[in-house]
Amino acid sequence: MTFTAVELIETKRDGGTLSSDAIEWLIGAFTDGTVPDYQMSAMAMAILFNGMSPEELAVWTRAMLESGDVMDFSDIPARKVDKHSTGGVGDKISIPLAPLVAACGVAVPMMSGRGLGHTGGTLDKLESIPGFVTELDTQRFREILTEHGLVLAGQSGELAPADQKLYALRDVSGTVPSIPLIASSIMSKKMAEGLDGLLLDVKTGSGALMKGIERSRELARTMVGIGESYGVNTIAFITSMEQPLGTEVGNANEIKESIDVLRGEGPDDVTELTLAFAEAMLILGGIDSPRDRLDGAIASGAALDKLIEVTIAHGGDPRVIEDPSLLARAPREAVVAAPFDGYVTRCDALTIGAASVRLGAGRAQKDDIIDPGVGVSVKAKMGDRVTAGDALAVVRYTDESRWVAQRHNLASAWEISIEQVQPPRLVVERINATSF
Amino acid sequence: MTFTAVELIETKRDGGTLSSDAIEWLIGAFTDGTVPDYQMSAMAMAILFNGMSPEELAVWTRAMLESGDVMDFSDIPARKVDKHSTGGVGDKISIPLAPLVAACGVAVPMMSGRGLGHTGGTLDKLESIPGFVTELDTQRFREILTEHGLVLAGQSGELAPADQKLYALRDVSGTVPSIPLIASSIMSKKMAEGLDGLLLDVKTGSGALMKGIERSRELARTMVGIGESYGVNTIAFITSMEQPLGTEVGNANEIKESIDVLRGEGPDDVTELTLAFAEAMLILGGIDSPRDRLDGAIASGAALDKLIEVTIAHGGDPRVIEDPSLLARAPREAVVAAPFDGYVTRCDALTIGAASVRLGAGRAQKDDIIDPGVGVSVKAKMGDRVTAGDALAVVRYTDESRWVAQRHNLASAWEISIEQVQPPRLVVERINATSF
Repeated sequence: MTFTAVELIETKRDGGTLSSDAIEWLIGAFTDGTVPDYQMSAMAMAILFNGMSPEELAVWTRAMLESGDVMDFSDIPARKVDKHSTGGVGDKISIPLAPLVAACGVAVPMMSGRGLGHTGGTLDKLESIPGFVTELDTQRFREILTEHGLVLAGQSGELAPADQKLYALRDVSGTVPSIPLIASSIMSKKMAEGLDGLLLDVKTGSGALMKGIERSRELARTMVGIGESYGVNTIAFITSMEQPLGTEVGNANEIKESIDVLRGEGPDDVTELTLAFAEAMLILGGIDSPRDRLDGAIASGAALDKLIEVTIAHGGDPRVIEDPSLLARAPREAVVAAPFDGYVTRCDALTIGAASVRLGAGRAQKDDIIDPGVGVSVKAKMGDRVTAGDALAVVRYTDESRWVAQRHNLASAWEISIEQVQPPRLVVERINATSF
Repeated sequence: MTFTAVELIETKRDGGTLSSDAIEWLIGAFTDGTVPDYQMSAMAMAILFNGMSPEELAVWTRAMLESGDVMDFSDIPARKVDKHSTGGVGDKISIPLAPLVAACGVAVPMMSGRGLGHTGGTLDKLESIPGFVTELDTQRFREILTEHGLVLAGQSGELAPADQKLYALRDVSGTVPSIPLIASSIMSKKMAEGLDGLLLDVKTGSGALMKGIERSRELARTMVGIGESYGVNTIAFITSMEQPLGTEVGNANEIKESIDVLRGEGPDDVTELTLAFAEAMLILGGIDSPRDRLDGAIASGAALDKLIEVTIAHGGDPRVIEDPSLLARAPREAVVAAPFDGYVTRCDALTIGAASVRLGAGRAQKDDIIDPGVGVSVKAKMGDRVTAGDALAVVRYTDESRWVAQRHNLASAWEISIEQVQPPRLVVERINATSF
């Protein structure tokens, strides 16, 4: 069957439905360059306005998935459950979560990403462990997963090149926030793995890709729908990203906080979310009495041992896990103090994340080098009572001029009022195939 | 002021308004290649969905106009009124109209186009007059206009290169049918001329760019609004394009029909529309008792003399105007006959136009050569009574295999029913600045 890109763009523009043949042709022709960028960007904009049906989306996702190598772990006998977060500020959950779940007997083939915009990336955080290698070839990825029941790495092989090309085009054509395009981009990389289950953390609020609950819910439902169409049990949590998760925003300091969680000494919110996700992943992996297993793995030190074990497998220095004071720490320290007495009514994730990136904890441009010891420790969060002069944040930084440039921005993240507010509920909603 | 294309696309995508500075930057940067096609096609799609405000549109049109040379005739003392049609089948109105109006004392600097899709082009039709040159440089365009009070040519100079570039991109990115983009494309070429008035013929129906009356009306109002924002009195007629205009569809045969109109012997519909447009143009040109002037110019032969005069000025052979039997005529003739008795209830302009193009009267691809003697003579139109075996059309063609390929298509343009229908009103609506 032959198509022309223009007729397919017109169909989508006018609210019609693309046939499976048409979608497969389009993704193939875009990947091999037959369909040029200026047609695909117009198509992406038409999709942004007119959406895709569940049937179109399933075919679109599969076509992207099949555009490249497929990492299929279905031959590994353990039950395999992966987790994906849409990205937030202080979101280090994957780092304590994966060893905790693996210590309870469910394999976690975790493919993570790098920092994007104001959000941090799991790979960048892991690389603040000296020697830790996150870029693995498919063979090594599979070996670590088989031997240790978890692996913490970036994408290996040429996974979904259609998605990589489309993602780059969306970024420069104003077509990023299309729910079907976001959902198919994420799911095209997850559905090839031969998983038994998938947990999705869809962030909502100031620091999230989706600011409003309606769109967060739509994204969650769309991804769960794709997962189900592949026969992969998929659960989505919609969680609050109004303020940073935990106290640490950066890289090495987030590793320290992750270790605290595995020692049972983490901040309440990170601990709560880690345990909620871990429980869901154990259920997806078919483990009975999941909460008891999890409590046991933390109390016995098995979860922390699993992190040490996987760190060694990735070439990392395990001593920093045992003694986090060995992790990088930027040389300078400054405090953001409360200007007056009152309650914290706002502790804005987007503002803190963006300032942290500009201080050196992330990349403003693709080739920037991350300073792993730079970071922000958040000392006062929503609902907390503060007295004038109390630290709202303690900042570790290297470059004085960057600190001077960022300090007003950073301070603007906090609002101190007379009335106390309740912090937002952490888990806003849980969505699975039967919830809609 | 510096902008990035992505932020402007996002603004338009989200329903916002582009500032004047932003629009000027965008058109300039697209013209010089700083903004690549894949961003402009996404922008065009966002405009297709979210439209443009009258203020945005005025700036957009001006920026396109100012992207290249400007043909300004304001130094020529005569009153100047131009006419533009959105294109139809059998639409030769410009050819009798321009000499008729010029014979009554209003100058007509007519810049016409070539055939597009299933519609014919005034330039292609004129070139069936042997020797008639339609590509003039600015100097010669101006000389003919000054000396004869009319000129019938294509665009000269590098008029609105931004529009040329954007038009080509829209054609391949599914973004043609955006009313603000169509309106600014047309008006960016008309608003530079220093006109006293502009008459727009917006076609509606099967053979028109805009099939429905609502969108035709919106296009007409949008263009009138742009004209008024430039201080050019602009009148738009919305006219029916359900069936071909007149009897002739082709090139040389349409010249013949145009001459008939100037001799007072044209078909009723072409004559009616020519006179209605001519009257409006004389009013825009400040001429009193326009209808009497027009009747006089036809009766005296002054209008036909004007066509002969301008033909000579363009290098054409005036003998074909005096004796149209000298015009090209394809060697073969065939008839499409009525299959049974009844009334014609459909005589579809799109179908007849497309078949005529494929028989050789137009271009299927950009470099095709037009066969000027090929054409369709429509013998039965909506409301006509026919007997089985009567000719619905007489076709002149050169290539037997093309005729065989097209004859079923062509015949499908007619519907014969038992009940008689009224043909659609020719002038559906007249719109000027005070009508909305």
